[in-house]
Amino acid sequence: MAEVRSMNTQPGVRGIIDCDIHNVVPSVEALFPYLPEHWREYITRSDFKGPIENPYPAGAPTSARPDAAPPTGGPPGSDLALMRAQVLDAWGVEYGILSCAYAIESVHNPYAAAALASAVNDWQNAAWLEPEPRLRASLVVPSQHPDLAAREIDRLGDHAGFVQVFLPVRSAALYGNRRYHPIYEAAVRHDLVIGLHFGGAPGTPPTPSGWPSYYIEEYAGMAQVFQSQVISLIVEGVFDQFPALRVALIESGVTWLPSLMWRLDKEWKGLRREVPWVRRLPSEYIRDHIRLTIQPIDAPPDPARLLQIVEQLGSDELLMFSTDYPHWHFDTTEEALPIGLPAALERKIMAENARAFYRLVS
Amino acid sequence: MAEVRSMNTQPGVRGIIDCDIHNVVPSVEALFPYLPEHWREYITRSDFKGPIENPYPAGAPTSARPDAAPPTGGPPGSDLALMRAQVLDAWGVEYGILSCAYAIESVHNPYAAAALASAVNDWQNAAWLEPEPRLRASLVVPSQHPDLAAREIDRLGDHAGFVQVFLPVRSAALYGNRRYHPIYEAAVRHDLVIGLHFGGAPGTPPTPSGWPSYYIEEYAGMAQVFQSQVISLIVEGVFDQFPALRVALIESGVTWLPSLMWRLDKEWKGLRREVPWVRRLPSEYIRDHIRLTIQPIDAPPDPARLLQIVEQLGSDELLMFSTDYPHWHFDTTEEALPIGLPAALERKIMAENARAFYRLVS
Repeated sequence: MAEVRSMNTQPGVRGIIDCDIHNVVPSVEALFPYLPEHWREYITRSDFKGPIENPYPAGAPTSARPDAAPPTGGPPGSDLALMRAQVLDAWGVEYGILSCAYAIESVHNPYAAAALASAVNDWQNAAWLEPEPRLRASLVVPSQHPDLAAREIDRLGDHAGFVQVFLPVRSAALYGNRRYHPIYEAAVRHDLVIGLHFGGAPGTPPTPSGWPSYYIEEYAGMAQVFQSQVISLIVEGVFDQFPALRVALIESGVTWLPSLMWRLDKEWKGLRREVPWVRRLPSEYIRDHIRLTIQPIDAPPDPARLLQIVEQLGSDELLMFSTDYPHWHFDTTEEALPIGLPAALERKIMAENARAFYRLVS
Repeated sequence: MAEVRSMNTQPGVRGIIDCDIHNVVPSVEALFPYLPEHWREYITRSDFKGPIENPYPAGAPTSARPDAAPPTGGPPGSDLALMRAQVLDAWGVEYGILSCAYAIESVHNPYAAAALASAVNDWQNAAWLEPEPRLRASLVVPSQHPDLAAREIDRLGDHAGFVQVFLPVRSAALYGNRRYHPIYEAAVRHDLVIGLHFGGAPGTPPTPSGWPSYYIEEYAGMAQVFQSQVISLIVEGVFDQFPALRVALIESGVTWLPSLMWRLDKEWKGLRREVPWVRRLPSEYIRDHIRLTIQPIDAPPDPARLLQIVEQLGSDELLMFSTDYPHWHFDTTEEALPIGLPAALERKIMAENARAFYRLVS
C-alpha cells in the first residue's frame, strides 16, 4: 500500500473522500438490540432471517477482495477495525460515506421492512458512526413504501452522521414516479443526498426484456437501469419540484452519461411540449443535480480517453472518488483512478466534488 | 432538395444505401389478397383490424415529415410514388432497405400472428419489391413464436428481395435466450441479416422499472433496450453458436456503444468463467457481427465529437446510413449526416458498410 500513502502526501493534497464504502450487517442478530420484541421473536421462531440480496457471488472476481474477510468471522465489510486499516488509514480518507445495502425493498411485509430499516440505521449509528468520526452513513429505508420511508428519514435525517438516503437503483417503479415524491420531500427537508446504488431486489426483472440468464448480464446491464432512472427523474420533473434535491449515482459507471445527455437533450427539443415542466436542457439538470462515483469504472483501456469523457460531460464537477470497499475492482491504486488527469481535476474527483455535494466541512 | 443532389454528384460517389425506410401497411384490407378466407372473415366480422403499434404519435415532431402524407390518403410511408420522389430519387439511393413495423409480436393468437406476417410479406413482395428494383425488404415474422418465425423465414428467405428478418427490439424475453435460436438458425440458413428495430409491443414494460409516464421516456429510453439485447446476444453465445450471424441495430442510436464495449469487455475479463463459450472480448463480437444505422443520430452538438465516437468504436465499418423515412429527424441534408467526416469514412457510412453487410452488389 506504499504507493497509496505517497499519493496522499503530495504537497497540497488534503484527505480523500471515499463515496462508497460498504458496511455489512453481519447477521440479523446484530440488529436485535434495535428491533422491537415482536420482530425479534418472529425472526427467532420463523425461517425469516432478514432480507437476502446477493449481487456479489462469493466466488466472482468482482466480489470482495480476498483479504477483506474478518479474521474473527463474519462477511467482508462487517469489521470496523479492518475497514480502518484497509480503507480509512490506508488511503488517508478524510471522510468515508457508507453504503449499507440491506435489500429492505425485497421484504413484502411493510411493517417488517420498516422495523428492519430502523434497526439497521440505529445499528449503523452505534456500530459505525459513534466509534469512527471519519464515517458518514446512508439511511436505509423501505423505499417500496415511500410514506414509511419518509417517516424514517424524518426520524434520523437531522443526525449529522447521516448524509444520504440509500435507494437501490433497481425498483419496481421508475423513481421519477409521483409515488416516490414523499421520499424526495423528506430528503430535501433534511438536506440529504439521494443515493441511487447498484443493485436491488424489487422482485421485477433487471432488463426491459425480462430476466437474464447469467450474472454478467445483470452486472454489466445495471448501467441501463441507471439510465432509465435518470431519464425518469428528469422527465417527471423531480428536479423542478424539488430544486434543492441532489442525487448520487453509486457504482453506476460514468462513460454512458454523455450519450444519454446528447440523446435526451435532442429529444427534449422535439418533445418538450409533452413535459412542459422540464424547462431546461436535460443535461443541465444532470450537471446541477447529479453526481457519480467512479468505481467500478467503465473507462476505456486508454486513460487519455477518460479525459475525453470528462470533456464530453461538460463539467469537471460530476465525478466523485470511491473505492467500493470491500468489493474488488482493482489490484493497485494506479488502477483506482486512471492516471494522466490534470492535477486540478484529480483533486476535484478525489475530494472536492464530494465535499461540496455532501456538504462536508474540511 | 438541391443540396442533396449536389452531394450525390460529387466525383467518385456512387449511390447511397439507405438502411431504414418504412413501408407502411395502409390498412388491414391491403393484406386481404394474401390472407386465408378464415382470417379475412374474422377481421371483417370482429373488431380486430390487425395489430396496432404507435410509437410515433401523429402530433410529435419525431413523427412523419409533414409532406409525407400521400395526397391519395393513407398513412405516411404507404405510397411508393411518394417514397420514390422523396427518398429514392431525391437522395440518389442505389438500394433502400425497407423496415416494415407491423407489431406482429403484439398478436396473442399465434395463428393470426403467423397468417398476418405471411400476408405482410407477400404484400411487401407484390407492392414494393416487384415494382421497384432499388428496394430490399425485411421479413416480418411472429417473433414471439420462434418456430413459426423460422417457418416464415424458410418460406421466403431465398427470395432475393428479402435481405433481413425484422425483430422489434422490445421483446418479452432477451433475444440471446435459447428460445430464439430457431430464428437465428433460419436466418443463417438463408444468409439473412437480423434487424433489431426501435420499438415493439410485447406487452411488457420498456424499462427495467416498469412503465414510464411519458412518451419521451420511452423514446429516449429505447437505447437502453438495445443495450440489454446486445449484452444478451453476446453473453448467451449466439455469435459463437451462429458464427455467420449478422445483426443490424436500426434506430438504436450509436454513441452509447463505446461505453457498453468498455464495460462489457472489463466485466468479461472478471466473469468469463460463467460463460466459457464467450471466447473473445465482447467488443470483438460487436465489431464482427453488429452494425448500426445512424438515424435518429444521438450525436453530440459538436460534429467533431462524432469522429471521436467512431474512433472509440475502434472500427469505421459499424455505421450505416439511413433516413428513417418518413419519420422526421432532420430538416436539411446537412443534418442527416454530420459534416466534417473524412471522405473515406463518409463513403463507408453512406454505402459501403451496408453493401458488405447486406451483400448488395454494386
